[in-house]
Amino acid sequence: MYQIDLNCDLGESFGNYRCGLDEEVIPYISSANVACGFHASDPSVMAKTAALARKYGVNVGAHPGFPDLMGFGRRNMMVSREEAKTMVQYQIGALSAFCRVQGIPMTHVKPHGALYNMAGKDASLAEAICTGILEVDSRLILLGQGGSEMERAAAAAGLTFAREVFADRAYEEDGTLVPRTKPGAVIADEEEAVRRVLSMVKHGKTEAVSGKEIPVKADSICVHGDGEKALAFVKKIRMELEREGIQIVPLGSTAG
Amino acid sequence: MYQIDLNCDLGESFGNYRCGLDEEVIPYISSANVACGFHASDPSVMAKTAALARKYGVNVGAHPGFPDLMGFGRRNMMVSREEAKTMVQYQIGALSAFCRVQGIPMTHVKPHGALYNMAGKDASLAEAICTGILEVDSRLILLGQGGSEMERAAAAAGLTFAREVFADRAYEEDGTLVPRTKPGAVIADEEEAVRRVLSMVKHGKTEAVSGKEIPVKADSICVHGDGEKALAFVKKIRMELEREGIQIVPLGSTAG
Amino acid sequence: MYQIDLNCDLGESFGNYRCGLDEEVIPYISSANVACGFHASDPSVMAKTAALARKYGVNVGAHPGFPDLMGFGRRNMMVSREEAKTMVQYQIGALSAFCRVQGIPMTHVKPHGALYNMAGKDASLAEAICTGILEVDSRLILLGQGGSEMERAAAAAGLTFAREVFADRAYEEDGTLVPRTKPGAVIADEEEAVRRVLSMVKHGKTEAVSGKEIPVKADSICVHGDGEKALAFVKKIRMELEREGIQIVPLGSTAG
Amino acid sequence: MYQIDLNCDLGESFGNYRCGLDEEVIPYISSANVACGFHASDPSVMAKTAALARKYGVNVGAHPGFPDLMGFGRRNMMVSREEAKTMVQYQIGALSAFCRVQGIPMTHVKPHGALYNMAGKDASLAEAICTGILEVDSRLILLGQGGSEMERAAAAAGLTFAREVFADRAYEEDGTLVPRTKPGAVIADEEEAVRRVLSMVKHGKTEAVSGKEIPVKADSICVHGDGEKALAFVKKIRMELEREGIQIVPLGSTAG
Repeated sequence: MYQIDLNCDLGESFGNYRCGLDEEVIPYISSANVACGFHASDPSVMAKTAALARKYGVNVGAHPGFPDLMGFGRRNMMVSREEAKTMVQYQIGALSAFCRVQGIPMTHVKPHGALYNMAGKDASLAEAICTGILEVDSRLILLGQGGSEMERAAAAAGLTFAREVFADRAYEEDGTLVPRTKPGAVIADEEEAVRRVLSMVKHGKTEAVSGKEIPVKADSICVHGDGEKALAFVKKIRMELEREGIQIVPLGSTAG
Repeated sequence: MYQIDLNCDLGESFGNYRCGLDEEVIPYISSANVACGFHASDPSVMAKTAALARKYGVNVGAHPGFPDLMGFGRRNMMVSREEAKTMVQYQIGALSAFCRVQGIPMTHVKPHGALYNMAGKDASLAEAICTGILEVDSRLILLGQGGSEMERAAAAAGLTFAREVFADRAYEEDGTLVPRTKPGAVIADEEEAVRRVLSMVKHGKTEAVSGKEIPVKADSICVHGDGEKALAFVKKIRMELEREGIQIVPLGSTAG
Repeated sequence: MYQIDLNCDLGESFGNYRCGLDEEVIPYISSANVACGFHASDPSVMAKTAALARKYGVNVGAHPGFPDLMGFGRRNMMVSREEAKTMVQYQIGALSAFCRVQGIPMTHVKPHGALYNMAGKDASLAEAICTGILEVDSRLILLGQGGSEMERAAAAAGLTFAREVFADRAYEEDGTLVPRTKPGAVIADEEEAVRRVLSMVKHGKTEAVSGKEIPVKADSICVHGDGEKALAFVKKIRMELEREGIQIVPLGSTAG
Repeated sequence: MYQIDLNCDLGESFGNYRCGLDEEVIPYISSANVACGFHASDPSVMAKTAALARKYGVNVGAHPGFPDLMGFGRRNMMVSREEAKTMVQYQIGALSAFCRVQGIPMTHVKPHGALYNMAGKDASLAEAICTGILEVDSRLILLGQGGSEMERAAAAAGLTFAREVFADRAYEEDGTLVPRTKPGAVIADEEEAVRRVLSMVKHGKTEAVSGKEIPVKADSICVHGDGEKALAFVKKIRMELEREGIQIVPLGSTAG
């Protein structure tokens, strides 16, 4: 039987600022990547998000980012390896307190934004992140893109790695995402996006932007909850997955 | 045999800014209160401080403060109970990651600066802090001033409380500190400061600013490492305590 | 002929976070209080807000707050007089750059949130703010509540003061606002709110919560743009004012 | 007669953290680059630094950096052109308030750390900075390295540019600095550093690391005040310049 995880970034509000339809989207996902106060969130938001995750039985992972609230962690920052390692550890630790309060485990780590993108291509940054995770808790699963430097670094470090795929993004022949600056980078048609996801989950393959069929291993589908349109798509994809008999299971069940 | 803990705030550097003679003072103390990134410190500094504490076998405690780096956590902030609770939990969690990296336990929590002072007098803030600690780890010792609202809240919550005394500060008859704005608040004479500490540790009493003898229960002596003069005093007090046959032991051994 | 200013807090978005219906509300107001990066906003948002103000010919004032983004400047902070003075100057200066870029003058200063509330009651804080403004530009108008310590401090400093009134809040007999914690603090009925505003503008009086008629001097009406309901009320009050032949004019025309 | 400016970064303390021997070094320099609260400094420190500059008759310039206090503005950040432009404008504006308080003009802008280094090589970033300066005050002098993209962008924008040289750094044949990672990058010998400075000021040339003589146009010498050793070197270089009859004059007198 087919199984897949649905992961979504949650808990990205901050102080007076609301962001994301957390309560609406959480019933449809199986793993939550929870912002940890560097690129978004604050202690009260983290407490609420952890409580929400427990209520819905959703896996909780840390979603560490660069210390750049103004840039929402989306601006590349040239941090040292030591800085990258310790800022990931700090954020994992901070979230772990709220998991303890809720009596739930932390299951995974998914770097956010620019940290995610940079670590996907920079072996030494990826290694720093993996070392950081490993030193704190070797059972944590690293969630990232298949074929990335993060996957290689996780393997080298002995960390379990979970591969996520994107329903709304086109792939190059080498399995990397088509950059958003290029035509065809985004799959705007929802029906096509669903078809692609089903193909990735059931057949382990998709059609690259070139038209060539390529293999894609999917442990998790990355979905978004930051607007009505995104929310509607999450509901749709969940429904279609279930209609096809694909079981939605949290990250630990599919990775590794 | 007499026993006492010596606690000191450590790890208060931040980025490019150095603060405190951490490496010089740590051989003389038994418990370190480690800043957690809100009023001071950053992930790299916390990693180094936890490593230093392990090297010297010193107890590690969280030293959470208000989110006010510019004010070094010394400016009163009117946060809600929920905010106080979760910001303490966040900071405990963040430090716990670096304790895990070092394979050492976190033993205690000592609120910093304005949070310490406000919680000493505000029962509901003290309760919020105690609830925050309790929800994360009920074995953590709360370090504060005897007779304060923090002591009462810890007792009500079932948290172990450790009473710290100050060598260089005068006391009122009710056991509270003489405010710094009043004459005689600070004990400038080192010999007198030492005599007072010895009296508190061995006889459980000291002379209030009024001249009246008052009882003072001491589990720990608060010392400072933020300058050459402070460092010299730590060395002196440690030597005098040992000369009197008083054993320097970490917090867990004396509190409760 | 009657004249009144309509002032509204604008430019409170930050980075990825949107806040306030700035573009929708600005056509209906005459003075904008622009957040300066401490409690809200960032350089890009300030640049956009100043451009918007020029486009609509709206007066621009600085809206300085406490350095507390997480608390949106709504948490009281015990800053020193020197700190209060310089943080107001810093924020005025920062906004002045964007006024220069747009070729428009800065007309006023309205402290934000907790700084506004504290300075309304604390004479020495009010004086620090007024000194801060005066040292930078003595032509700036201070916008605040009539009868407050800010009004007294402005008079003592020789600063022009503009009194703002609130359509949706009840007043005590002494002209202060009924605290939100008390019953009857908020005027929920829009028709009544409009009637009260008209009475304040045309007759300089309103009915206190006790039922007694009290004098209220109004240079400006404070309106909000932080939601559809608030926006609708701004449109309504503007229409009703104009229907009554009351001219909407920017701050400088009514204050002093 | 020969003339040269001596510029130094000042006002880099923050809150409780002290940094730099500002009061000791300021008597020996002619232009101060004042941190503006993004990579270092806070409103109180800026107020003190502007007052110090007036007291010693030293030129004041803005020293804007990336919004990265933890990294002291030394970590590259991939900001957009709009972000770069507005963050420079914000910081110029903030400092301008303290210049107004002191009744002194702001004379120049010198980007800090990573922003300086990146803008030296990135034409579009350099252009964003120049546009930012120009829009606020076209009389401001841009202080940077000769031959850099900043010089080219300033020329294109019509901004006056002042070229600074480094006494303690070796140059490549193309006039760029030898990277610190290469051998011979730093001139450790003070006598040699002085000789090189004198040659640059009097003869407009220096010896590249390769041994070849290259032309170097110097409007200002960058000196440091961040330690006893740096301070001693400032005193020495000032004495040697005066002994050679070279006049120390503020930036505006030499640039352009």
